[in-house]
This record gives sequence, C-alpha cells and structure tokens, in this order.
Amino acid sequence: MKELGRQLVVELWECERNTNEPEEIRKALRRAVDRAKATLVDVQVHTFNPHGVSGVAVIAESHISVHTWPELGYVALDVFTCGEKVLPEAAVEVFCELFRPQRTSLLEIKRGIQL
Amino acid sequence: MKELGRQLVVELWECERNTNEPEEIRKALRRAVDRAKATLVDVQVHTFNPHGVSGVAVIAESHISVHTWPELGYVALDVFTCGEKVLPEAAVEVFCELFRPQRTSLLEIKRGIQL
Repeated sequence: MKELGRQLVVELWECERNTNEPEEIRKALRRAVDRAKATLVDVQVHTFNPHGVSGVAVIAESHISVHTWPELGYVALDVFTCGEKVLPEAAVEVFCELFRPQRTSLLEIKRGIQL
Repeated sequence: MKELGRQLVVELWECERNTNEPEEIRKALRRAVDRAKATLVDVQVHTFNPHGVSGVAVIAESHISVHTWPELGYVALDVFTCGEKVLPEAAVEVFCELFRPQRTSLLEIKRGIQL
C-alpha cells in the first residue's frame, strides 16, 4: 500500500502573535517551503477586512495553505506534499515558531492510496 | 459545539478526461467558486512537466485546491470554506463533471471547533 501524497491538517489555537501580519506570513510560507525541502512555484497572500489573512504557497509537491482568525487566535494550516524527499513536518514547525500557539492538533491524511 | 470552517477532502480516481488541461481546470475553479456561492479572491493554475496540473482558488471563505496525476487518472481535491452561506459540495460536483471519475471518496473535516 502506497500513497501519492501526505497532507498534514493542523489546528493552531491561542496563537500569541503575527496572525494579522501578511508580510510575516508571506515570509513564513517561503521559509516553510525551504525548510520542507520543497520547490516553490507561487506564493499568494491576501488580507481581509477587518482582520484575517489567507496565504497559499503552490509547490511542485502540492501546496501549503494558511488561514488566520486573529480575533480568535486561531490558524488553520494545511501542508500537502507528494514525494519522499520532502519534510512536511518541518513546514509546520515554521508556523508554530511564527504564531506561537499554545494548543495544536495535527491530523495526517494519506492522499492517493494505491493498493 | 460550532466549527469555523468545513473542509471536504476528496479523492477522484479513474478520471476519464481533462486532468491535464490547465485552462479547463482554471475555468472549473471559477465555476466551482460561483456554484458554491463563494467570493473569488485569486486563481492560480500551474502545469508540470511531463504532466500534472495544480490549481488553487483563494476565496474569501478559505480555498479550493486541485492537484492532478493524469498518468494515474487521479485527482486530489480540497474544498475548504467558512461561513454558513456557502455550498462546498456544489464545488465538488463541478470537478466531478469536469473529470468524470469512476470512483470517489469524500472526507469532511470540521476546522476550528469551538466548544
């Protein structure tokens, strides 16, 4: 049994900082791609009124997405990678360093399971 | 108990068409956003060599992502929405119409559960 990709579905709660900082989030997306040893294709970061940031890095190995709710101290992070050379957990660490959540949970989904 | 968002994690197998057609996938992303009654912020579609397409629509309500493996007839689709006015299942239907998968599975994850 072999999967094509791994998706880490991460909940970050009680985040202490940077949840409403689009430039910090953009830099973190780039850093996460580097640290995961993935290949960056495109980064987009958008801010919402009155607060909230969405960022997506498309990578050759799939994507990393982050959506923030600053008013709740909550961030929804997904790291979806394919291939065996990448380190998706390393990308998660970058966002924990950025946001400093006090509570986290992580669900791993194997995508494209081939029997 | 209330969630901030819903994420549909969808596996499409034995897709019969359009898995290597970036313009069709771009149009489908826009159609999916419309049909889900979501608000489009940005669409990015990238092709890979020798085959494969990745597309992401950032929406005001989070994102829709699609990654294709034409050589395997497989597509990994995610529809992540927040708010009660959107219809994420309608976005999934658009991609089923586009790719015509013979087998599908769907996992729903509630994101940002507040007790």
